[in-house]
Order: sequence, then structure tokens, then C-alpha cells
Amino acid sequence: MSNVKARPESEAPGSVVPCCPPLSERPFTAEEAERTARMFKALGDPVRLRLFSAVASHEGGEACVCDISDVGVSQPTVSHHLKKLKEAGLLTSERRGTWVYYRVEPSVLAAMGQLLAVR
Amino acid sequence: MSNVKARPESEAPGSVVPCCPPLSERPFTAEEAERTARMFKALGDPVRLRLFSAVASHEGGEACVCDISDVGVSQPTVSHHLKKLKEAGLLTSERRGTWVYYRVEPSVLAAMGQLLAVR
Repeated sequence: MSNVKARPESEAPGSVVPCCPPLSERPFTAEEAERTARMFKALGDPVRLRLFSAVASHEGGEACVCDISDVGVSQPTVSHHLKKLKEAGLLTSERRGTWVYYRVEPSVLAAMGQLLAVR
Repeated sequence: MSNVKARPESEAPGSVVPCCPPLSERPFTAEEAERTARMFKALGDPVRLRLFSAVASHEGGEACVCDISDVGVSQPTVSHHLKKLKEAGLLTSERRGTWVYYRVEPSVLAAMGQLLAVR
């Protein structure tokens, strides 16, 4: 078992699990901020944000590098950024044949949304 | 008038206004991603996230540098990060006497939350 609380509806998709109350409930501790900042940072790059949006909006809610060609960066760069999004816990991945398919982790998105809830 | 749409409940707090549909609705354009990434990036730093949380959870929903002393960085560093959060449109500020008071911009937070809405 890891030392982070698993959310009941899903297992931890990666090394980061949403952990924390809304940002406006009480001041975050250093540890909470470290964990949460990684998710925001992953979406804080325009290319990654476009890729994330491309995966999230793709038919069936998943996409591989082969599905993404219009973001204006090379395929290796696309792969690099998709891995970063996965490391931040925002995407999960599954290899099928030649390609790795990425899927949005809805519970993580929902938890990030809750962080931003206004008191 | 600026060329961005003002939200009915408030004026644009800074140079960034939430602009975009949920990330899972359709792939973001380059321009949408540029605008939105700035907000996520501002929250993608642990110190800024703690400061943001400190302001958001402070009594009355506002705080000045004088109210924040337990984040482990110097007062000039606190001021620097609060300015960055303001530039990203996440905080508004008002000078009263010696101090600048920062307040969370609820409409921006709500719009960020909507970006993360799952289809």
C-alpha cells in the first residue's frame, strides 16, 4: 500500500493522487502543495494542454500518438509530453500492438475541479 | 473595451480571462491553450499554490503580505509570487494604506473548474 489515500471510485493511476481539500478551505501544507502543484504544472504548458485536450475529446475518450498530428510538434515531442501528463497522474496508458493509447483519468480531473471549488 | 468577453458577474481581473469550453469537449486551439496554460502554470508551483491557498482561505477572503508569514519564504518572495498570481488573473489586488490586499477572483476559479469538467 502506498501512503496516500486511494479514492473509493478508482485506484491511483500514477504517482500522484488528489489529496486535498478545496484551496479555499484552509492553507495548504507544504506536502499538499508539492503534490497538487505537479498536476497543475503538467497542464501549465500550452502544448501539453492541447495534447491533453486532444486525448480528452477524442472518440472513445482515448488516443494514441498516431491519432494526434495537428499540434505542430514532432511525434517524439508528442510522446514526451503524453508521458509527462501520465507521470502527473492525469492520463493512464495501455499498450496495444504498436501503439500506446492514452486515456484521461476522470477521477483526477474531478478532484482537481474540487480543489478549485469556491467557498 | 478589450477584445475578450467579459463575464457577466465580473470584469476581467487581469490580462487573462477564462475563455474556453471544457478540455474534453474538443481539441483546444493554440490560442486557447496559450491563454489557459498561463492560469494552470501559475498554480503549478508549490510556493504559489500555498500562497494562493493562504489568501483564498484567509478571513474575509483576502490577505496582504503582512498576513502571510508561515510559507517559509521571505516577504519579497511572497510579494513576487502574489504578483504572478495576479498577472495570471487568479487574484485581484487593492492598495489600502501601507499594504496591498489580495483577493481570489471567484469567477476565474469557477471557469477553471469548468475546464476540468468531465464529459
